[in-house]
Amino acid sequence: MRLATLTSGGDCPGLNAVIRGIVRTANTEYGSTVVGYRDGWVGLMEDRRVDLYDDAYMDSLLLRGGTVLGTGRLHPDKFKAGLDQIKANIDDAGVDALIAIGGEGTLKGAKWLSDNGIPVVGVPKTIDNDVAATDYTFGFDTAVSVATDAIDRLHTTAESHNRILIVEVMGRHVGWIALHAGMAGGAHYTVIPEEPFDIADICKAMERRFQMGEKYGIIVVAEGATPKEGTMDAGLGEEDEFGHKTFNGMGQIIGDEVKKRLGYDVRTTVLGHTQRGGTPTAYDRVLATRYGVHAARAAHDGNFGQCVALHGEDIELVALEDAVAQLKTVPERRYATAKAMFT
Amino acid sequence: MRLATLTSGGDCPGLNAVIRGIVRTANTEYGSTVVGYRDGWVGLMEDRRVDLYDDAYMDSLLLRGGTVLGTGRLHPDKFKAGLDQIKANIDDAGVDALIAIGGEGTLKGAKWLSDNGIPVVGVPKTIDNDVAATDYTFGFDTAVSVATDAIDRLHTTAESHNRILIVEVMGRHVGWIALHAGMAGGAHYTVIPEEPFDIADICKAMERRFQMGEKYGIIVVAEGATPKEGTMDAGLGEEDEFGHKTFNGMGQIIGDEVKKRLGYDVRTTVLGHTQRGGTPTAYDRVLATRYGVHAARAAHDGNFGQCVALHGEDIELVALEDAVAQLKTVPERRYATAKAMFT
Amino acid sequence: MRLATLTSGGDCPGLNAVIRGIVRTANTEYGSTVVGYRDGWVGLMEDRRVDLYDDAYMDSLLLRGGTVLGTGRLHPDKFKAGLDQIKANIDDAGVDALIAIGGEGTLKGAKWLSDNGIPVVGVPKTIDNDVAATDYTFGFDTAVSVATDAIDRLHTTAESHNRILIVEVMGRHVGWIALHAGMAGGAHYTVIPEEPFDIADICKAMERRFQMGEKYGIIVVAEGATPKEGTMDAGLGEEDEFGHKTFNGMGQIIGDEVKKRLGYDVRTTVLGHTQRGGTPTAYDRVLATRYGVHAARAAHDGNFGQCVALHGEDIELVALEDAVAQLKTVPERRYATAKAMFT
Amino acid sequence: MRLATLTSGGDCPGLNAVIRGIVRTANTEYGSTVVGYRDGWVGLMEDRRVDLYDDAYMDSLLLRGGTVLGTGRLHPDKFKAGLDQIKANIDDAGVDALIAIGGEGTLKGAKWLSDNGIPVVGVPKTIDNDVAATDYTFGFDTAVSVATDAIDRLHTTAESHNRILIVEVMGRHVGWIALHAGMAGGAHYTVIPEEPFDIADICKAMERRFQMGEKYGIIVVAEGATPKEGTMDAGLGEEDEFGHKTFNGMGQIIGDEVKKRLGYDVRTTVLGHTQRGGTPTAYDRVLATRYGVHAARAAHDGNFGQCVALHGEDIELVALEDAVAQLKTVPERRYATAKAMFT
Repeated sequence: MRLATLTSGGDCPGLNAVIRGIVRTANTEYGSTVVGYRDGWVGLMEDRRVDLYDDAYMDSLLLRGGTVLGTGRLHPDKFKAGLDQIKANIDDAGVDALIAIGGEGTLKGAKWLSDNGIPVVGVPKTIDNDVAATDYTFGFDTAVSVATDAIDRLHTTAESHNRILIVEVMGRHVGWIALHAGMAGGAHYTVIPEEPFDIADICKAMERRFQMGEKYGIIVVAEGATPKEGTMDAGLGEEDEFGHKTFNGMGQIIGDEVKKRLGYDVRTTVLGHTQRGGTPTAYDRVLATRYGVHAARAAHDGNFGQCVALHGEDIELVALEDAVAQLKTVPERRYATAKAMFT
Repeated sequence: MRLATLTSGGDCPGLNAVIRGIVRTANTEYGSTVVGYRDGWVGLMEDRRVDLYDDAYMDSLLLRGGTVLGTGRLHPDKFKAGLDQIKANIDDAGVDALIAIGGEGTLKGAKWLSDNGIPVVGVPKTIDNDVAATDYTFGFDTAVSVATDAIDRLHTTAESHNRILIVEVMGRHVGWIALHAGMAGGAHYTVIPEEPFDIADICKAMERRFQMGEKYGIIVVAEGATPKEGTMDAGLGEEDEFGHKTFNGMGQIIGDEVKKRLGYDVRTTVLGHTQRGGTPTAYDRVLATRYGVHAARAAHDGNFGQCVALHGEDIELVALEDAVAQLKTVPERRYATAKAMFT
Repeated sequence: MRLATLTSGGDCPGLNAVIRGIVRTANTEYGSTVVGYRDGWVGLMEDRRVDLYDDAYMDSLLLRGGTVLGTGRLHPDKFKAGLDQIKANIDDAGVDALIAIGGEGTLKGAKWLSDNGIPVVGVPKTIDNDVAATDYTFGFDTAVSVATDAIDRLHTTAESHNRILIVEVMGRHVGWIALHAGMAGGAHYTVIPEEPFDIADICKAMERRFQMGEKYGIIVVAEGATPKEGTMDAGLGEEDEFGHKTFNGMGQIIGDEVKKRLGYDVRTTVLGHTQRGGTPTAYDRVLATRYGVHAARAAHDGNFGQCVALHGEDIELVALEDAVAQLKTVPERRYATAKAMFT
Repeated sequence: MRLATLTSGGDCPGLNAVIRGIVRTANTEYGSTVVGYRDGWVGLMEDRRVDLYDDAYMDSLLLRGGTVLGTGRLHPDKFKAGLDQIKANIDDAGVDALIAIGGEGTLKGAKWLSDNGIPVVGVPKTIDNDVAATDYTFGFDTAVSVATDAIDRLHTTAESHNRILIVEVMGRHVGWIALHAGMAGGAHYTVIPEEPFDIADICKAMERRFQMGEKYGIIVVAEGATPKEGTMDAGLGEEDEFGHKTFNGMGQIIGDEVKKRLGYDVRTTVLGHTQRGGTPTAYDRVLATRYGVHAARAAHDGNFGQCVALHGEDIELVALEDAVAQLKTVPERRYATAKAMFT
């Protein structure tokens, strides 16, 4: 058998570990070969094919962030218009099954290809942990770890200077990274997109700390946080494709308002791209490797139109259409547990 | 309400985070107070009580490995003989519920106390991840991370010297740490207690690597690994309480045999106590904190005789007797996935 | 004997380790006691005194970033006007010698106190490594390590997306952090305040990479970088107290210009406060501890008006006036070595 | 010009960074080419030559521990007998200068080649920091960091169980790693080869801790530590080539004796090979890169028979014969500073 794989959408620690898992399993369990397409769907359409060998180089990818296949974005219309070309390329290369690794958009594309007769297996990828079909996605634990390390460092500098530090982390639509990094980093308040915040509550929490003798505070803010209607002016914002209003620089906006209301020394740090780069944590390497092994097996077993998913301790298969049916948001009970630990 | 808590058995990163979770939740959600008993069950019997306040010190414990309450071991007979004393101490202190944090032995003790009229909630703790009731236990991810970091470092030194390196990790009865650290660290072979090993297989795998041009190998060995009957002489070993035969220095034993059979330069490293110490990973801090919050809530809700457990994404309650019914071993399908990645 | 100590200016990993070194040495080598003044010079003037004991808490400070004494800034005029008050406070507390830990401003203050009859020993502190008297200052290695970790992570994400990433690091007046983190992180270009940059050179270097088939670039920018006169418009900027022109958001300014000129996907990350917080590296813990031990000894030996300094492998004493005579900038030969490694 | 390079002796984080520094500098500053010889002197004799290109692969080596050229050991007699072969190989390859990267033995070999007419530049490499010519060697900071991380983790587990933990670190002839890791890790006692220990002193220090209410202790032991004559029986030991007596398993020997004398729970951990593997610290990457740049320049400047060395802030050249004249041991004043921080 001959497998093909590609990575699409934003990069994420663990992508290379998935590729390695696919190649090794195809090789040792089935004696199959694997090709990769560079730059996501574009590369599939333009036949940017490369042979993937189960060698020492492949082995070294386990530790390496990003994706050696590169990634890209392609407009759905162009993608759909390219179906015949894709089929021709796959036939030409003698590919029997395609494993598409990517986020919501990629999995939707994978489903569409599957519906149109191409044998596809999906691997969910999102640093934001927002895919409904799976308990956790690889890359998420790494992002949380990087953010937590940063918050650990910020505690002492905030304390030494009697400052409030706002830490803006990734999460435009969902607050998973903020929720976990805030809890792991001992933040005194955490704001997530799922529950619009009241700036007065944040200020009250900080006031309480200072009254109790504490002289600093750490507030974790997901980039997609939004103020509760009528509680503060945060500018106009923009509505995204989910109908969720987002604002650029929400950390800074909150920081400025807290400073204005309380008069304390307030600083804002935006963690940025470091959250999505670099070597994956042990957790993510295990999860990504297992995804790769199971995706290769699914392809060999003919389980097309499905994607791998983590349920409890096990990797299982779910239909692609269920995987992309909805965004996995932070449930109220999880945010309630986070709140129990504020201040 | 007034809660008491104690930690018992081996130490584990995240114990302090559980304590902090209990104290904070009792305080902010219920206005309750919490006392701690030092040194495990012994401290409960000898009334080594200390008040636990929800202050800056408590907050700082999130990052700190080990347990500030100390831990200890107590023979079950002595423990049972002390029931009246325990009851008296608890009454004396005005304690309404006890939260016992510990491994299998501790949870059995908790169940016995519960059966004898003391209101107890359990929190499972085992660095080995061997408690059946829960998907994962805190401390496990930290141990795997520490072991993986070490294995990452060992690759380059083994490669530079054309050596086979044996890495002995924790796991006397179960192979979870070896399984995960071996997979995350890209080990070329991993040996776990659940499946007795054939030394000839290990040697064959190493030979294959050297024939393919690779000039080094990493073998991860759980300390409780045992040879398949009749395949090699590993000395007499000792039978443990589960009827499982264990050997001291299994890493060294395997290393010596591989060296004898293949003639390569073979070295053994025993990772030791570093696996159970130090600041918990972000994953373990989140899990431990959630355990603490939910244990405090269970105590306030009167859900005694139960322990908190992770199922998928949620923390749930399970009966103490189910939690300790059996050791959670590595299932065959998980080891099969690991094998797919052996070189 | 009775020592006093205080920390002043920006916080820096290792401050607590210095304090611990002073307290331990005073205690075990001389049987002396130590008091601390909170919040820098302000605390000395307002007698915010606290006893420092050589206990387990003090011991735990080795690992802790920031300063448990807090820090503060005080205008030199107010400081000088407070001389009598300072003398009275010190007499009152029975203090025989003061150890002032801080940067250039603090050491100038220390010198002034020394000239005015107060027995002072200085400990140089600057995360920027810009004190002329010493080879290296503690905190610098930690800042470089944090920045290097971040750059390591950014390589893979830049590569996966074919991006140029600008990383702005600390260094308003000197480029030491940029120089070292750029070299350690394998940056493809590094800009420091000491040598005004020509944006055309930066663009040329990036062009060369892309022509050679590389598809990404990492540019490290010290926050105090300035364009060579007439080479690009960076806005007005501001002249600082050293006559050096600085611009806010220099990373972003360079990023925007590179994008405009080359048309590539360019992103900017500002590393921010994480560089100055958190547990110190082993290097900084050793240096800070040695500073503390030697400062305590200098105080007991009556070597006032001096400060400790690292020269080669040894800690020596230098006159405070020499220590603050000039800013230590990156010499041309060091930047030339860095340039040899630009791609 | 055409340079050759090789790495010899034990591996060390930073070797690859030196190689990269040489190749890049030769390429960009001089337009020269570089070849590498595999497996140290053996490879030079047997002409295991490989071209080293200044490409993306070379760039990636900055982060990688070990040496991609491999290393080896060769008996001096064989080495000397091979002089004609070496000359022939170098002539054959058109090599104008050889850069030898290695420890004391390697630099002695380099000097001998230089005396015999081969143009050689040396780069000192020793994880133990025992080369007299230079303030610090690369790899040392990484080894200290790895050991310090381990000690950090051991504190909490020792404390939770009221244990004394013995940590054996590398250092057969000199105590630099023990000295720095002990100080950075807050060890309560550190034993180095340079000063034979009295077991009674160690026990006294531990007793004092327990009497003061502390309930655990961390003792760092260099593997080459030796007991003061007549103070305890440590077996026969072996005399090494410097006339220094060494014992296998000194950590365990000390642990057993402390346990016997004090009756506390004592455990021993041997850190082992992890100290010499893995990605170098930022400090070591900078030092190794600078060594590489300066070695390439020295070769082009015709400064043969010399080796690069760190003096204060600068890289300078020293004669090879001075570099290997004596082992750099820990001076008494440094150990005295360490002692100030015991307990």
